[in-house]
Amino acid sequence: MKLYDFPLSPSPRRARMFAAEKGIALDIETVNIREKEQFTDAFLAISPNCTVPVLELDDGTTICDSLAIWRYFEEVKPEPPLMGTTPLEKAMVELWLRRVELEGYQAVVDVLRNGAERFRDRAVPSAEAFAQIPALAERGKRRLALFFETLYERLQESAFVAGPDFTAADIHALITIDFAERAVEIAPPDGLAALKAWRERVSARDSAKA
Amino acid sequence: MKLYDFPLSPSPRRARMFAAEKGIALDIETVNIREKEQFTDAFLAISPNCTVPVLELDDGTTICDSLAIWRYFEEVKPEPPLMGTTPLEKAMVELWLRRVELEGYQAVVDVLRNGAERFRDRAVPSAEAFAQIPALAERGKRRLALFFETLYERLQESAFVAGPDFTAADIHALITIDFAERAVEIAPPDGLAALKAWRERVSARDSAKA
Repeated sequence: MKLYDFPLSPSPRRARMFAAEKGIALDIETVNIREKEQFTDAFLAISPNCTVPVLELDDGTTICDSLAIWRYFEEVKPEPPLMGTTPLEKAMVELWLRRVELEGYQAVVDVLRNGAERFRDRAVPSAEAFAQIPALAERGKRRLALFFETLYERLQESAFVAGPDFTAADIHALITIDFAERAVEIAPPDGLAALKAWRERVSARDSAKA
Repeated sequence: MKLYDFPLSPSPRRARMFAAEKGIALDIETVNIREKEQFTDAFLAISPNCTVPVLELDDGTTICDSLAIWRYFEEVKPEPPLMGTTPLEKAMVELWLRRVELEGYQAVVDVLRNGAERFRDRAVPSAEAFAQIPALAERGKRRLALFFETLYERLQESAFVAGPDFTAADIHALITIDFAERAVEIAPPDGLAALKAWRERVSARDSAKA
């Protein structure tokens, strides 16, 4: 299997970290986002929204979404389980993946794409131009602060985001927090001890370097 | 199992329609959103973001997200499958659920919550107040038009959203389109014949009335 990848982007890091946890080997092909290689016709045919990662199976079939790639990996290599085992565990992973995505990751995207000069006219991941909305960058900062609080409260009562075990929800949350720090220079505030301890614990896994 | 529900909201309709396809019986408890019953302390303890639906299991455990409820239903009653059977089918359902959510449903939410007077200071689903951003309502309209195009192109080559079979992705897409028409008065433009035919086909299912 081949992964179209860009080392600095958060979404392909999701696919790499999940694959590393599973012991799944991937051929890597780098698409240089900084050089706008995602807008070439060849790549557009693979990924209509011009985003990485894309997983290409050996028969040429492509899956162009990081969480859909996770689902594929979980099904073809169930061990170790990263998306829950019982029906309730699976539902809790789904719930927390959605909360991380909608309350955390999308808030960082709002801050970055509506605030950074290099995303001028690319405020939405699309082949079409979208103007930035500065007020949305500000809203994103407030939403991100609430997301840190939500995670902190959750991690005071739970060892990991979706429950007692490490799951894909931890990967999504860690990469969202690392992305916020690197791309928009917003880190969780001091004092959220349970969040800090969880982040150190998850960051220490070998897969976090993938 | 009990479903905290509001008949006019799109997210609880997702849970009802999915349950109807599976033949899962639910006790219904209505939370009157129009009367702001979702902000009572009793309901906040169940649903921290003050949203319906919430599924309450017989042991009192709650699942407060419509897609997490789908995952639970799919696991406890696998037949008929609504989230794919093979690894690739499951990945394609995931991919299309994400596209419908991020490109379609969230665009309608942006239009509604940033444009309608009744959502003044409630532009984000949260217990905290968020001011409306009128430019985001306008962006939502453009994104929604692109989403209709995306669905139309997909349905020219595929009988259903995620592939040849009816799945949860069709439920998500149908309810998103119905929501756009009812809540922000935006319907797919004339001429997208494959989209229109698919919508009529899916709307004719008994579950669409649930």
